[in-house]
Amino acid sequence: MLFHVRMDVTLPPSMPEADAAELKKVEKAQSQALQAQGKWRHLWRIAGQYSNISVFDVENVDELHTLISSLPLFPYMKIEVMPLCRHPSSIRDDDR
Amino acid sequence: MLFHVRMDVTLPPSMPEADAAELKKVEKAQSQALQAQGKWRHLWRIAGQYSNISVFDVENVDELHTLISSLPLFPYMKIEVMPLCRHPSSIRDDDR
Amino acid sequence: MLFHVRMDVTLPPSMPEADAAELKKVEKAQSQALQAQGKWRHLWRIAGQYSNISVFDVENVDELHTLISSLPLFPYMKIEVMPLCRHPSSIRDDDR
Amino acid sequence: MLFHVRMDVTLPPSMPEADAAELKKVEKAQSQALQAQGKWRHLWRIAGQYSNISVFDVENVDELHTLISSLPLFPYMKIEVMPLCRHPSSIRDDDR
Amino acid sequence: MLFHVRMDVTLPPSMPEADAAELKKVEKAQSQALQAQGKWRHLWRIAGQYSNISVFDVENVDELHTLISSLPLFPYMKIEVMPLCRHPSSIRDDDR
Amino acid sequence: MLFHVRMDVTLPPSMPEADAAELKKVEKAQSQALQAQGKWRHLWRIAGQYSNISVFDVENVDELHTLISSLPLFPYMKIEVMPLCRHPSSIRDDDR
Amino acid sequence: MLFHVRMDVTLPPSMPEADAAELKKVEKAQSQALQAQGKWRHLWRIAGQYSNISVFDVENVDELHTLISSLPLFPYMKIEVMPLCRHPSSIRDDDR
Amino acid sequence: MLFHVRMDVTLPPSMPEADAAELKKVEKAQSQALQAQGKWRHLWRIAGQYSNISVFDVENVDELHTLISSLPLFPYMKIEVMPLCRHPSSIRDDDR
Amino acid sequence: MLFHVRMDVTLPPSMPEADAAELKKVEKAQSQALQAQGKWRHLWRIAGQYSNISVFDVENVDELHTLISSLPLFPYMKIEVMPLCRHPSSIRDDDR
Amino acid sequence: MLFHVRMDVTLPPSMPEADAAELKKVEKAQSQALQAQGKWRHLWRIAGQYSNISVFDVENVDELHTLISSLPLFPYMKIEVMPLCRHPSSIRDDDR
Repeated sequence: MLFHVRMDVTLPPSMPEADAAELKKVEKAQSQALQAQGKWRHLWRIAGQYSNISVFDVENVDELHTLISSLPLFPYMKIEVMPLCRHPSSIRDDDR
Repeated sequence: MLFHVRMDVTLPPSMPEADAAELKKVEKAQSQALQAQGKWRHLWRIAGQYSNISVFDVENVDELHTLISSLPLFPYMKIEVMPLCRHPSSIRDDDR
Repeated sequence: MLFHVRMDVTLPPSMPEADAAELKKVEKAQSQALQAQGKWRHLWRIAGQYSNISVFDVENVDELHTLISSLPLFPYMKIEVMPLCRHPSSIRDDDR
Repeated sequence: MLFHVRMDVTLPPSMPEADAAELKKVEKAQSQALQAQGKWRHLWRIAGQYSNISVFDVENVDELHTLISSLPLFPYMKIEVMPLCRHPSSIRDDDR
Repeated sequence: MLFHVRMDVTLPPSMPEADAAELKKVEKAQSQALQAQGKWRHLWRIAGQYSNISVFDVENVDELHTLISSLPLFPYMKIEVMPLCRHPSSIRDDDR
Repeated sequence: MLFHVRMDVTLPPSMPEADAAELKKVEKAQSQALQAQGKWRHLWRIAGQYSNISVFDVENVDELHTLISSLPLFPYMKIEVMPLCRHPSSIRDDDR
Repeated sequence: MLFHVRMDVTLPPSMPEADAAELKKVEKAQSQALQAQGKWRHLWRIAGQYSNISVFDVENVDELHTLISSLPLFPYMKIEVMPLCRHPSSIRDDDR
Repeated sequence: MLFHVRMDVTLPPSMPEADAAELKKVEKAQSQALQAQGKWRHLWRIAGQYSNISVFDVENVDELHTLISSLPLFPYMKIEVMPLCRHPSSIRDDDR
Repeated sequence: MLFHVRMDVTLPPSMPEADAAELKKVEKAQSQALQAQGKWRHLWRIAGQYSNISVFDVENVDELHTLISSLPLFPYMKIEVMPLCRHPSSIRDDDR
Repeated sequence: MLFHVRMDVTLPPSMPEADAAELKKVEKAQSQALQAQGKWRHLWRIAGQYSNISVFDVENVDELHTLISSLPLFPYMKIEVMPLCRHPSSIRDDDR
């Protein structure tokens, strides 16, 4: 089941650079593991912003929430979720 | 080059059903041709809405505008465009 | 799987009263059938508005979209969907 | 009498983790007591957000305000309240 | 129980003046009857707008919805409802 | 002359509790004095929020600004003002 | 007493040009009469828009509402009103 | 050339009172000098807010920006600028 | 003097195609004449929208309003104007 | 390929002046180098705001993101990007 997720990251200016770097390193590892498992199906940067557009492919809503809320940057992100479904005009088999 | 496009369709209540059906038929054919050419890379329905999320893969901005503004439903759509670029954490070769 | 849905209805002033009455009658029958099947789990009126708050319990996102977009009032509704999941503090077994 | 309540929680980044944990523990206990009394009738997590959708069943508006404003997280929440009433198409006896 | 209600009226330009005048006449009579019963406790015009601020005093939310949705101008109004309760600093006995 | 005023209070989390308590105590006294003089004609709490709806009855706009800007919580409030006038359907003599 | 008023005019595309011209002619005459009386103290066009910024100088809020709601274009305007008062740094005697 | 400017001031709660007082004193002097020169033509307080509505009369846009950005409170203000022009119905010679 | 202008065009669906074509033809001629005179300095299409971003170079605000409000599509456009001035970091002589 | 970019700068009040001055000096140098290379084609100040309107001319979206996200003020800016394309009425050869 597919969900469209937009994440906007805002780190507090007072956060020490080393802490930010550590957070981002763990976030990247966790994101790549989820991509490898096929759970985090697409991940793009929005040009000019510290934001991404993602598509998750999960078993259900609870799994979606668990994945997102376990991300190290979760407390610093504004997140918007939209459920997606197959478009009747789509010709691409795996866009569902 | 990738662009994230959201399209919200609103047909005027006064449009005859036959006209609407014809418009949608041409729109579908045109959309599927662009998908087959790889220009309209992803197409999903937003659940509960007469709206879609699309990802276009085009040579440049002019091509993007030409494709979108040639759609038969263009006069009836509210459209938002966001340029996308490769995310540094992405592991998927074709998400760029 | 639960989804929170808000529906705001706007009928065009030019719609004949008989047409509106027929639409509402079919809408009511369809809504009650879905409630009886357990798909449309909750349905409340927002006080002072021609709007409702609903909770749907469906197998997946595609089923949700099919149910909503088949409603006779669908072309006349502004619809917002939010996926829900179980709250860690909930003590109510069926709120999931 | 039913009220639809949305709560969005934002804890200040400077709050010590132990304080946050204590606040959440008391909040959970208080929420579960109110659920057990039937006052806090539904409680769901909005997927991907530190937010909930709740339905309260109270005697009157003053009781609603007292319950919400006594929550330990109240100073850290953005809260929206909408009065609900029975929907004429509802077939569920206790959705009122 | 008190509810704060804002009503913004928009009549379609195509409505014949006689129809509008009749609607307003019935609306006024109904409003004054509700005021006389103490249900519609306050009614003010917002300066410069075809809008009012009202305070209703009702037994419960269902009564509120019934009163508002029975107004002849209901189909032509945008309505916002906020539940009110007694303010701890109020010294006015009947502001509750 | 009547003015509708909405006040939303936000105290900075870093304010010591004793300071907040003192501010609120003075605010309450000042509010009650103005109510006793008939200047602050109505004062209600918006349910679920640290906000109020007030109606002021003043000689002119300058008096309104002086009263509001002298409140101890003024620096911590978001304030919206709307001028009110008598509604042609009102039957209540003092709602003007 | 001064009030800042913004008026945005939208005439329905279906209005015959002669009707629009007549409305504007009466509006202009009425506006100039009010300016001559000193009631409509300032009147500027917002560049690039069919909108104006005005400052009214009236005895009270009821007079303000009567003047605005009697304008022939009133049914076709979106209107925002803000009460103004003398600024403590102003050196201009008549800006009050 | 006239420009309509709205300024909303927000001083950080952590600013020492003496610093705030000094800033305001210099701001007032600078504002009054510009008023005396005819550059800052109108200055009103918006009732109930720490905000003003101003009309500047300048040679060109660069002068406008220089005047506004030199104000001591500039870093603490949200500013909105609208170019104004003479209204065809205005009868006041200096409203241009 | 430079002004940044955004124009969003919405033609009513009921407008006959021939009328729309005529309007656009005159609009284009007028726009190109103004470009040739150096008054309409830049003109770009926003990708995916029936909208443009323009930069006007005019003597004063009145000239700006006259140019914009004389466009044949003016009654069908939503227009936003922002005054621009030279940026202190600009190295381009004619960006002022 | 052209992109319209709006940048709004907000420096935290706690940033030492020397740090801010250093950031701005490096920002200016980097901006001027990009202008000299023709990548940052236009740069204007929005009057009355610490904001700019820019037009970038880049090979592709990735280059755009790299240029913007490398600016020293990037962490302190709210940024909006819109892809532009040639307008069919433009007569200016280099506006593409």
